[in-house]
Amino acid sequence: MSVIRREGPFFRSRWIEVAPHVRELPEGGLPAGFRAAAAAAGVKPTADPVFDVGLLVSDEPATTSAVRFTASGVLAAPVLVTRDDCQVDALRAVAANSGNANAATGEAGLEAARRMQRDAAVLAGVDAERVAVASTGVIGVELDAGVVAAGLDAAARELRRDGDADFAAAIMTTDAFEKRATLAVELPGGVVMLAAQAKGAGMISPNFATMLCFVETDAALSAETADLLLGVTVKRSFDRISVDGQLSTNDTVVLLCSGASGVEVAPESEAELRFGEALDALLRQLALDIVVDGEGARRVGRVVVRGGAAEPVDAVARAIANSPLVKTALYGADPNWGRIAQAIGAALPGSDPLDFDIAIEGTTVCEGGLGVAADIAALEQAVSREEVEYVVDLPGDGFETEVFFSDLGYDYVRINAEYTT
Amino acid sequence: MSVIRREGPFFRSRWIEVAPHVRELPEGGLPAGFRAAAAAAGVKPTADPVFDVGLLVSDEPATTSAVRFTASGVLAAPVLVTRDDCQVDALRAVAANSGNANAATGEAGLEAARRMQRDAAVLAGVDAERVAVASTGVIGVELDAGVVAAGLDAAARELRRDGDADFAAAIMTTDAFEKRATLAVELPGGVVMLAAQAKGAGMISPNFATMLCFVETDAALSAETADLLLGVTVKRSFDRISVDGQLSTNDTVVLLCSGASGVEVAPESEAELRFGEALDALLRQLALDIVVDGEGARRVGRVVVRGGAAEPVDAVARAIANSPLVKTALYGADPNWGRIAQAIGAALPGSDPLDFDIAIEGTTVCEGGLGVAADIAALEQAVSREEVEYVVDLPGDGFETEVFFSDLGYDYVRINAEYTT
Repeated sequence: MSVIRREGPFFRSRWIEVAPHVRELPEGGLPAGFRAAAAAAGVKPTADPVFDVGLLVSDEPATTSAVRFTASGVLAAPVLVTRDDCQVDALRAVAANSGNANAATGEAGLEAARRMQRDAAVLAGVDAERVAVASTGVIGVELDAGVVAAGLDAAARELRRDGDADFAAAIMTTDAFEKRATLAVELPGGVVMLAAQAKGAGMISPNFATMLCFVETDAALSAETADLLLGVTVKRSFDRISVDGQLSTNDTVVLLCSGASGVEVAPESEAELRFGEALDALLRQLALDIVVDGEGARRVGRVVVRGGAAEPVDAVARAIANSPLVKTALYGADPNWGRIAQAIGAALPGSDPLDFDIAIEGTTVCEGGLGVAADIAALEQAVSREEVEYVVDLPGDGFETEVFFSDLGYDYVRINAEYTT
Repeated sequence: MSVIRREGPFFRSRWIEVAPHVRELPEGGLPAGFRAAAAAAGVKPTADPVFDVGLLVSDEPATTSAVRFTASGVLAAPVLVTRDDCQVDALRAVAANSGNANAATGEAGLEAARRMQRDAAVLAGVDAERVAVASTGVIGVELDAGVVAAGLDAAARELRRDGDADFAAAIMTTDAFEKRATLAVELPGGVVMLAAQAKGAGMISPNFATMLCFVETDAALSAETADLLLGVTVKRSFDRISVDGQLSTNDTVVLLCSGASGVEVAPESEAELRFGEALDALLRQLALDIVVDGEGARRVGRVVVRGGAAEPVDAVARAIANSPLVKTALYGADPNWGRIAQAIGAALPGSDPLDFDIAIEGTTVCEGGLGVAADIAALEQAVSREEVEYVVDLPGDGFETEVFFSDLGYDYVRINAEYTT
């Protein structure tokens, strides 16, 4: 499992708008008040040691936080412990591991997650209820709490402001490249830092798919403001990606606000607007990176659906993004709008006759449910690029949504069919 | 497109119960009162001519019928014409073509479907409103009504009692093998014949997936009885298969009852029970054949879900059957129950903690949401066979459902990504 550093700017998609007051810091690093590190503890059964346990700590006692979890009906032990045993609006540390999801592991799994939490609390010098825990990897296998403890111990000795890259590496599973960024955000009261480390691959891993994201800022936010901003931005990012229509047992997003910059983000202020825009761009690019990082994914699609009611707009967007026919067409660079039409019809049973338009990369291919003549050669050219956009108009106005999705190619089958657990 | 005759018995799955009063007639043929034929009209743009237009006729004026259509919100022209312009309880003929779905073709498509209906009516000597039309193939391309007319003309000259094989061939698209059967059903009043010709491939075709099935019997059924039996048996067959979670614009099932045997199937009689059992076995085997006929499909899965409420039972069964993770594990002969657990959780968001058991091929692998020790070697052996069964128990009793599903392998990607339209 070698981490591939990505060359070039973090914000690389035409679909992510970055406000002028947001600037990427290519050198990385954590906002003031935070330290992180990782250890190769041996949770992952690899020949060469790789980072698999990470620790993230805020040194500011007044740190506020917000969290979001998977909606799955089957929750992993670390999700249960963080959700039920933590002060989720005042977290100060995160203990995370990869290589084992600690899911479907019962009481022993809960005990392992609680021990991980207690060990990290002692090492970070904070109350246990202020430590979130997160795991990703194989499910149904007991997590060795002793191995994780040794890893946390080793990581604690390495905690440092530029430990974000190692921490990001420690939460990766099948990710082909790292997903992290550090931003400077110019607010009316001064410049704050905003950083995030995420993991997740567009196509689901051999054993399990999980999306984890840890976000840190040295801006001062009340827990309510942090929760509000995280809620809105997660809905516009990690909630808008389709990998294969699957929900993980372990998905976790944590936002920690140390306040160490002394710059406040007050409710309904210009600072809140700007900070929210930065957080939005950060999480949307990370979500898109998760889609892009499908093992073997050649290209990524974005479907935008507009119409007069929220429910059909959302159903159509998800149906298109989850359709294996649309995904294989994206992989094959085939501008086959019939598959889009089929997904629309399937998403809205009983709605015939349905009036809809479809455009691919700005070219209308279907109007009022009927094919229109289009320049096929130009279309084929357009859908062979790295990003392909589909726009569907349903009757009415007022609602619009988007979903990012990966293609479906040979490597998805290779990785998911030929590995055995 | 060469049709492969299947060797061996039609009823080949351990999952289909065949009552002792049902007997396959390996020589095929249509029930009394019916004639069918096909023509190579050239709708399919193949180098060598292949059957692509079919005609099926009942010579009995008192023929009754029942129909079921796709629930898609985008309906093809032949579906609209059959649904809206036909006497669907008294159909006497079917005109069908492959190579073009006549979908998303607007007013011109409706006119082509109506002409197909009128031409067939003249050739069959029946009213136009007693002719159903059906199409399957590429969508968004205008259907040349003249080409179809010439095909119907040629087919009409060949109409015969053993024309069922040609008729079945004429409706095939990417099917790798033919799907048809002729049965003798022993009723208290005498023996009747029951035949069916179907098309559909478990994995969706390069251009489009459609499931068509035409069923004929010489038993005498009232239109109400035909409708009741078709409704119940379609729900237990074609409604219980997952190919890739997609709905077609063209799916059509037609049951025609000529009554030529003189044996009546009266409501709530022993005859109705027996006839219903035969129809049920026939349609379930055909539905399973559609799943088996995934291009490149190695094996087929059956998931049975039991529990205390209909909605979660159905949601879980469909989530498992539609999960690309479960499908690739089936392809790879990997007894990975974690993927089943993940699909269960995803199907029932917010239901944590969820109590569930999972058994694979009779071996319990998960109990109360927790993995249990199992003989992995034996399990791996069991999931490498052609049919693999998964049983999920949710809390409560009283509801049970099943879904048949195909695996997901390289050839699905090859066929769906590398063809262009």
